[in-house]
Amino acid sequence: MRQAWTVLASEVLFAAPPYVVVTRECVRTSRGVEVDDFYRVDLPNFVVCVPQTSNGEIVTLWSYKHGPRRWGLSFPAGFLAQEEAPEAACRRELVEETGYTATELLHLGAFVDNGNQRGSLGNYFAARDCKLVATPASGDHEEIEVRLMSPHEIDCALSAGDIPVVHHVAAWGLARTRLGL
Amino acid sequence: MRQAWTVLASEVLFAAPPYVVVTRECVRTSRGVEVDDFYRVDLPNFVVCVPQTSNGEIVTLWSYKHGPRRWGLSFPAGFLAQEEAPEAACRRELVEETGYTATELLHLGAFVDNGNQRGSLGNYFAARDCKLVATPASGDHEEIEVRLMSPHEIDCALSAGDIPVVHHVAAWGLARTRLGL
Repeated sequence: MRQAWTVLASEVLFAAPPYVVVTRECVRTSRGVEVDDFYRVDLPNFVVCVPQTSNGEIVTLWSYKHGPRRWGLSFPAGFLAQEEAPEAACRRELVEETGYTATELLHLGAFVDNGNQRGSLGNYFAARDCKLVATPASGDHEEIEVRLMSPHEIDCALSAGDIPVVHHVAAWGLARTRLGL
Repeated sequence: MRQAWTVLASEVLFAAPPYVVVTRECVRTSRGVEVDDFYRVDLPNFVVCVPQTSNGEIVTLWSYKHGPRRWGLSFPAGFLAQEEAPEAACRRELVEETGYTATELLHLGAFVDNGNQRGSLGNYFAARDCKLVATPASGDHEEIEVRLMSPHEIDCALSAGDIPVVHHVAAWGLARTRLGL
């Protein structure tokens, strides 16, 4: 059954834009079943990027994240500004957070967070032949440490539980394949 | 700065358990900055499993998902029942959704959805040497097609945009490495 569900009614129940908006939908499935409390949770759309330098190192960030309540590894990432294209947001976040610019950006796909509630839409990138051109100035709430790591060191961090957020786990899996690591 | 933020106050603003609970936290970062509207969004915790048969095929599910508003590939997955351990939930979902049981389960990690709002906590597994023992009976809203695929066919589906939810993209990346695919 490839047919999309029909949305019969939709009501915003909670709104704190741009951070979180909760909508209750009444839907009819392709089997004809009506469900009157299917929740959609909209979070800000974002980009994430796995940057590789010309000598094969990966640019990583280490910081505390309040979502998982822990310190760990992430890749450069951030919300899209209004009407900003994903590739432009990716280039902006990369230089803001790391001071690096990319010669070549590779789009790895766009994925929602959750099969039911949707969450955010993320655009995933890898960046090749990155060069340090500036001092990082992310404007983040938290201190961020920029660290150059080998692919093997990132695999070890992943095994040790030091990549606590699934967006970055997915980005690494996609980038490894695309960059041939 | 490896120090966790301090939660100064916490208020539940929207609750539709078990589907979604929104909490506003007032936090103090390790830099001493106070933020009075940091949102936490709790969604149901889940398991996801990449099952491999004894002849190396991967058991996949194809269905419509309302989160991404499209039909596509996912791996067996589901919410944890109350007080159910992740490994038990994984074995239960695997047989319910596919009719297969696993000889060996490999834990690939536990990850939250989102670095800021948290979302759900997912436990990710691969299953080795799976055998068909029953007829699937997922009780899902939607018809689900069970399809045996080669790793190469899954990579092609991923490139074609047919794995629309990031949990399954991450699961595939983790399983490929762990199963040596």
